[in-house]
Amino acid sequence: MIAEILSTGDELRSGAVQDTNAGYIARKLEEQGISATRHQCVGDDAEGLVSVLAEIAGRADMAVVTGGLGPTRDDLTTAAAARAAGVELALDQEAEEIVKNYFKSRNRPMNPANRKQAFLPLGAVCLPNPVGTAAGFRLKIDGCRLWFLPGVPVEMKRMRHETVLGQVTQCMGRERSHYKTRTLSTFGLPESVADEMLAGFSGRFEGIRLGLRAHFPEIHVKHYGRGDAEKGLSNSMQAAVAWVSERLGDNLYSTEGESMASVLGKRLMHRKATLSVAESCTGGLISDWLTNVPGSSNFFRYAAVTYSNEAKIKMLRVSPATIRDNGAVHEKTVLEMAEGVKALCGSDYAVATSGVAGPDGGTPEKPVGTVCIGLATPRYSKSKRYYLQSADREMNKRIFAMKALDMLRRTF
Amino acid sequence: MIAEILSTGDELRSGAVQDTNAGYIARKLEEQGISATRHQCVGDDAEGLVSVLAEIAGRADMAVVTGGLGPTRDDLTTAAAARAAGVELALDQEAEEIVKNYFKSRNRPMNPANRKQAFLPLGAVCLPNPVGTAAGFRLKIDGCRLWFLPGVPVEMKRMRHETVLGQVTQCMGRERSHYKTRTLSTFGLPESVADEMLAGFSGRFEGIRLGLRAHFPEIHVKHYGRGDAEKGLSNSMQAAVAWVSERLGDNLYSTEGESMASVLGKRLMHRKATLSVAESCTGGLISDWLTNVPGSSNFFRYAAVTYSNEAKIKMLRVSPATIRDNGAVHEKTVLEMAEGVKALCGSDYAVATSGVAGPDGGTPEKPVGTVCIGLATPRYSKSKRYYLQSADREMNKRIFAMKALDMLRRTF
Repeated sequence: MIAEILSTGDELRSGAVQDTNAGYIARKLEEQGISATRHQCVGDDAEGLVSVLAEIAGRADMAVVTGGLGPTRDDLTTAAAARAAGVELALDQEAEEIVKNYFKSRNRPMNPANRKQAFLPLGAVCLPNPVGTAAGFRLKIDGCRLWFLPGVPVEMKRMRHETVLGQVTQCMGRERSHYKTRTLSTFGLPESVADEMLAGFSGRFEGIRLGLRAHFPEIHVKHYGRGDAEKGLSNSMQAAVAWVSERLGDNLYSTEGESMASVLGKRLMHRKATLSVAESCTGGLISDWLTNVPGSSNFFRYAAVTYSNEAKIKMLRVSPATIRDNGAVHEKTVLEMAEGVKALCGSDYAVATSGVAGPDGGTPEKPVGTVCIGLATPRYSKSKRYYLQSADREMNKRIFAMKALDMLRRTF
Repeated sequence: MIAEILSTGDELRSGAVQDTNAGYIARKLEEQGISATRHQCVGDDAEGLVSVLAEIAGRADMAVVTGGLGPTRDDLTTAAAARAAGVELALDQEAEEIVKNYFKSRNRPMNPANRKQAFLPLGAVCLPNPVGTAAGFRLKIDGCRLWFLPGVPVEMKRMRHETVLGQVTQCMGRERSHYKTRTLSTFGLPESVADEMLAGFSGRFEGIRLGLRAHFPEIHVKHYGRGDAEKGLSNSMQAAVAWVSERLGDNLYSTEGESMASVLGKRLMHRKATLSVAESCTGGLISDWLTNVPGSSNFFRYAAVTYSNEAKIKMLRVSPATIRDNGAVHEKTVLEMAEGVKALCGSDYAVATSGVAGPDGGTPEKPVGTVCIGLATPRYSKSKRYYLQSADREMNKRIFAMKALDMLRRTF
């Protein structure tokens, strides 16, 4: 079965507003076992709408169309659907009721412009809209079944949920397949290396295919599964995840698509341990990530963002001689930063960063992209220097912060 | 001229990832005076890619295609483009240099899988990629000019900016019109209120139209200008920006589309003043934003992320009695936090936050969304409580952090 998605509206076509409807509908169709092969987006242009609808009807078995059902002059989808189907518009009593009830329930007189929304293509089946004036409708064009929904996301979602899904499975016949997805999160592997490590996957696990996705600075390994029997699919997925996990080794930090901060937070909470942070080049980003984890107050003690040498000395008790002899970006300095913040607030663990995020501040010896990371644990302290340059200051901060959290993760 | 946009990738097609490239490219083309008539999105399927490329080439004068240029087996766009154009793939020296240089500049051996990225369709013109291994390319198919760019947004955006725009205007012939855009950044106005404040704009300034864009928690007011004469357009834009600025009042914080942190940083640097931060509920986010500003070491002194009461008392010298009598989320507490961090590091200004970001921790008296903000300046200190609940923990953190920076901005 070929399924397609069409979003309409000048605000989407011009990029002024991000189209979130197409992705949402694609996800919901996937959950029903229907893969939309194509999304399209066109503007509020009558001729263009008629021709894209005819195109889709000639190619697909079903389609979901959003937008252009409102009362204004640039809402053209209903008329375009009628033209593509070669039928007239006609007053639809159900659609008329929806408009009338909307105003009645709000004790407002009906706006004459809204009368237009009571007219649907002849032969269309009205789809009730519980939250707005625009009725949706279902219409067959050239053997293709099309569902037309309002473009306002909240209306579209309610109608999709309450009406469309049931009709889609009823009309199109639910496929016997089951679907599962799993996301494995890795850090420290370039995409091409991850791909190579996973060569040999293809065809090994029935119904499972892989997709790599760069989510800087992480690579996510997505598992998409499809099978006739739920049990068989579960087993296949489990085996695939185990196979992939083994190959990715310790670059894998979550088999459930969690964030690095969330994985770390869980491990700390599990052992009732606390963490403090001393950030120079990462400027608060590590702390921001950690405190995004709900319940982070259980493990997150304190962070000091010490940009200047003065702050490192005064707030973290780094020795002035260490900075004078080695500079702020140095293994010895971050070691003292980590030990300093740990002692200061009595946490079990501490992590510290100092580096050159750019665009300025690089030297031949310590170019932009240099970062030193310090770690203090209940048993020992250590520090290391890395060179991790990426495209700009914000991306350098991200990769430095991830490297620091990853270094801590590897101590557990 | 007919221009189209194609996004490729199973993660976009299936809705697993939101496609933001198409909207971005559409906006940038609009700014050049080119309206993309259609966006499409298809998955990683060789046959499907070839046929959609042929379709677009048959219909459009130009197109921008993103995705599928990576080193892995499901990166199929380059091969599909060659097939659609009826040419072979051939080693491209420029593309090879890009891959080699990428690894060389990182002191890493080149991965064999990346060699694939050195091959482009015969006749294609390589487009340099300053931040990744994937060269883009330009190729003519059936008289239609297509620009192929990587799908990773940061690479796509850099290449679009550095190469593609110039080529588009050069190849497609710049229309005689001139184009200008301006972005005004506001905080504190709901979109519908901003829209109402700007009623009456339409038709008032020749060639200028407005678009509101929500960029949580900010609203950006985009000015799109088009005119035959550059001078007239400049005057019209200037008048429009002045008219809009007056209506938006002090909710407007930048007429150049800058970030709040960047606006604040400039003001602080201008008066050679320094800032320190004490964050509870915002957890490092304010500090992260401030240190994203290049040159922030000139004004950013120090931040303390004090989640626990203990840390507030020990690190910021908040009085235990203040917390005991009022709680951590209180005007008095944040005032002492701001004064504490200011005194501690000798900065000229300080800002402090304490609130309930959720999902837990709310009470009837201080529900999720409550935030207290404290400010210390060279002349006075003050603090205030706000109720700013949004959808989730991360969004609450964002709106709290913006409110704090905005409160500081309003003191200048």
